[in-house]
Amino acid sequence: MPVSDVREPIRVGVLGARGRMGIEVCKAVDAADDLELVAMIDQGDGLFSASDAGAEVIVDFTTPDVVMDNLHWCVDQGISVVVGTTGFTEQRLERIRGWLAHKPGVGVLVAPNFGIGAVLMMQFAAKAAKHFESVEVIELHHPRKLDAPSGTATHTAQLIARARAEAGIGPVPDATKDEVDGARGADIDGVRVHSVRSAGLVAHQEVLFGTTGETLTIRHDSLDRASFMPGVLLGIRAIRDRPGLTVGLDPLLD
Amino acid sequence: MPVSDVREPIRVGVLGARGRMGIEVCKAVDAADDLELVAMIDQGDGLFSASDAGAEVIVDFTTPDVVMDNLHWCVDQGISVVVGTTGFTEQRLERIRGWLAHKPGVGVLVAPNFGIGAVLMMQFAAKAAKHFESVEVIELHHPRKLDAPSGTATHTAQLIARARAEAGIGPVPDATKDEVDGARGADIDGVRVHSVRSAGLVAHQEVLFGTTGETLTIRHDSLDRASFMPGVLLGIRAIRDRPGLTVGLDPLLD
Amino acid sequence: MPVSDVREPIRVGVLGARGRMGIEVCKAVDAADDLELVAMIDQGDGLFSASDAGAEVIVDFTTPDVVMDNLHWCVDQGISVVVGTTGFTEQRLERIRGWLAHKPGVGVLVAPNFGIGAVLMMQFAAKAAKHFESVEVIELHHPRKLDAPSGTATHTAQLIARARAEAGIGPVPDATKDEVDGARGADIDGVRVHSVRSAGLVAHQEVLFGTTGETLTIRHDSLDRASFMPGVLLGIRAIRDRPGLTVGLDPLLD
Amino acid sequence: MPVSDVREPIRVGVLGARGRMGIEVCKAVDAADDLELVAMIDQGDGLFSASDAGAEVIVDFTTPDVVMDNLHWCVDQGISVVVGTTGFTEQRLERIRGWLAHKPGVGVLVAPNFGIGAVLMMQFAAKAAKHFESVEVIELHHPRKLDAPSGTATHTAQLIARARAEAGIGPVPDATKDEVDGARGADIDGVRVHSVRSAGLVAHQEVLFGTTGETLTIRHDSLDRASFMPGVLLGIRAIRDRPGLTVGLDPLLD
Repeated sequence: MPVSDVREPIRVGVLGARGRMGIEVCKAVDAADDLELVAMIDQGDGLFSASDAGAEVIVDFTTPDVVMDNLHWCVDQGISVVVGTTGFTEQRLERIRGWLAHKPGVGVLVAPNFGIGAVLMMQFAAKAAKHFESVEVIELHHPRKLDAPSGTATHTAQLIARARAEAGIGPVPDATKDEVDGARGADIDGVRVHSVRSAGLVAHQEVLFGTTGETLTIRHDSLDRASFMPGVLLGIRAIRDRPGLTVGLDPLLD
Repeated sequence: MPVSDVREPIRVGVLGARGRMGIEVCKAVDAADDLELVAMIDQGDGLFSASDAGAEVIVDFTTPDVVMDNLHWCVDQGISVVVGTTGFTEQRLERIRGWLAHKPGVGVLVAPNFGIGAVLMMQFAAKAAKHFESVEVIELHHPRKLDAPSGTATHTAQLIARARAEAGIGPVPDATKDEVDGARGADIDGVRVHSVRSAGLVAHQEVLFGTTGETLTIRHDSLDRASFMPGVLLGIRAIRDRPGLTVGLDPLLD
Repeated sequence: MPVSDVREPIRVGVLGARGRMGIEVCKAVDAADDLELVAMIDQGDGLFSASDAGAEVIVDFTTPDVVMDNLHWCVDQGISVVVGTTGFTEQRLERIRGWLAHKPGVGVLVAPNFGIGAVLMMQFAAKAAKHFESVEVIELHHPRKLDAPSGTATHTAQLIARARAEAGIGPVPDATKDEVDGARGADIDGVRVHSVRSAGLVAHQEVLFGTTGETLTIRHDSLDRASFMPGVLLGIRAIRDRPGLTVGLDPLLD
Repeated sequence: MPVSDVREPIRVGVLGARGRMGIEVCKAVDAADDLELVAMIDQGDGLFSASDAGAEVIVDFTTPDVVMDNLHWCVDQGISVVVGTTGFTEQRLERIRGWLAHKPGVGVLVAPNFGIGAVLMMQFAAKAAKHFESVEVIELHHPRKLDAPSGTATHTAQLIARARAEAGIGPVPDATKDEVDGARGADIDGVRVHSVRSAGLVAHQEVLFGTTGETLTIRHDSLDRASFMPGVLLGIRAIRDRPGLTVGLDPLLD
């Protein structure tokens, strides 16, 4: 009997299916040949409809107050989960690890950022940080943003600072004597971060590294919410083969 | 008798010929087919050697304490001058205008910046400023620079602020509520300016304009001192046809 | 009797109101305090409803086969028009000029591109072209685009070539001896143009000018259709004060 | 007796010390606190002066016709070598491996490119290639360059093509139907490469990756020959701890 090389599509359920992100996830799953959207669940719907429909992976873009119950139920049912909901503390992650200890075949991916480009930017920045004496971060966003710097920029600067410390690199060279307040940006663990706000921008970040006679720049431009979908799909495709808890998209990109 | 279309080269003398900039000017004049270097003068040399050599244009890259005497002598001799020396106050410019009033055929160009790219960047920025609600300036320099922002960036921001005021444009939109000190840069007349310092950089500036759905960016990269030479040569070629005092390279670029 | 300084809003009608661009125009007019949307007209609606509603300016984003009839009617009614419909030949423009000759108070603006950023980019490029020996154009678009280079890039290169010719600048320096086919881009009137196609891009263009030791880069990024709206609004606000035919947004930006 | 934590400087000899690169290497070694320049050797000088001076590492920037003899002698003497000379074929590398087999304590680093930034750019590009459907390479150089694309750009494109093939990614999406010859660049193993040439540039490269809604750009700017020195110093510091043959800077950057 011939063995077919056509793999069955992965059966996917979406929690928070009517939310901003959930809608995008449903569209992306629907459009992917190797995935099948079998359940769209939101407030008021029962989770069991996902198991009834035979969901193998569940994507959760809900809210911090319900996500732990959702996760507990999924793990209990033996269904792997890709979680984009925010608000995960180390304590919460520890509880999930506890549940998973009893379900060796189940995988849970909790990722604060599903933008593949953003995650690679941070990986590359952490690696380059060990080889350049100078580094600065410039993030650029639409003018309705409330915080400056962005969370991603702050996180990037912290990763860079840690990599420099590990490599034994001293402070960034800077002879500035005469500064108009703020010109040199915010100081995040010794790394200068500049926040640009302008109409016509969405979400962009540039990390500039410099040493004698050369610079290396890593830039990420995100144009819309859809930019998270390749990362979500990557998670759906990979999570059943990664039992236990995976935090962040990084391990899936190696 | 046939009329030749080969114009005689312009005879050029250089004051401050052994200084950093003077050396570059001598090289650039020497390399130009339509210019002839007839006098290289520095401390201890007499100015008259320039007139003896028939200099038609003199370039002055000396120091604030001698430049006014040099200029007075040149104007008196009827020789046009291109001045890159710094330290010109409105008072000094007024004195030069006084001398030139008696010498209708002589032109003097005093320019704080001979970089054609930098001057065009500022012209374009002032023009674009009237058409975009958002604008920020990012300047990037080597880490040995003492001041932040750079003089060029401050000047650019002031030109932009003035153009916005004239066009009746209100403040740049910015919803920032939660800022780590310095993240949003220095405030120069309402325009945010960010100063990046890194090894591997020389002198760079970017002006970013934004409105609904689009941005316009003007960027200038200056790699070395030689970048001022095209502007100096432009001045030499034009100054005899511009009697009186010309301040800045702008009018020559139109 | 006190004179009010509150100007009456301009009454605007939109032809092609249910088309892609028309919908955006209606939204933008509606959102502007100084404009009032009084008529939304599309296929099957009568033009007279615009005049009945007292439209002072009509915006036309229809199709080449109906636009001339629309224009004739508007001019006849004494209503000024802002036209974004494509397909205008010199012959068509001549006919419009003929109609306008009899209606001294009416203005018509026909613009192939309402992106203020794109129009400024071309203006700046034409100006900078006279001062740099090197220049190249890089345009970047989404991968569904059919033509390469883009119309804007071709037009920009032609403007640059013309400006160089007028300034008497010779060919761009280029020592390339050993080229893999296509590496040096397309040759548009002696200006090299490179077309980049990538997912995640929308519509972008960069013009790079270079001379000894410095480069000047003008970059335009357009993220969505909405980027044309500031240009359309600019046209609406200005056209009643510009009787006769205006071609292109340029004159309104000075 | 107190143990000193001050390590003895590494004693370094330079072959080709009067060449363009050799001069820079001598300066860089001389300026580094942890290195000591003990021999500067060029044509006509005997190699033994390096061993007499107690060189522990020798840097070779000579020519393809003498480098193999130099290397043989160094390995024979038990001195580790950092080689920047060009012209290494697989055959030559095999011969070096043969010599080193008998000298277990000696390390040889042969690197075609000592620019840390360029090497990281290629590493990052190869990694990102697996995660983006679109990718293009844009390299920008001074107009005196003879080949297009540059060797680095060609190599980068090949690395990307190989990574895509391994990840099972199909052709880059591109709907271009109507192309002016050359607009879409050179095709290097299915990756489009664009070569920009302009006065005012030195050596620059940009790799642009794109997927739905986002792009990731890696850019390297090299301003002068000195940019290779941090890579050469890295090699000098590391090579004694890496017995055998090391090809390329990559392994030293991990």
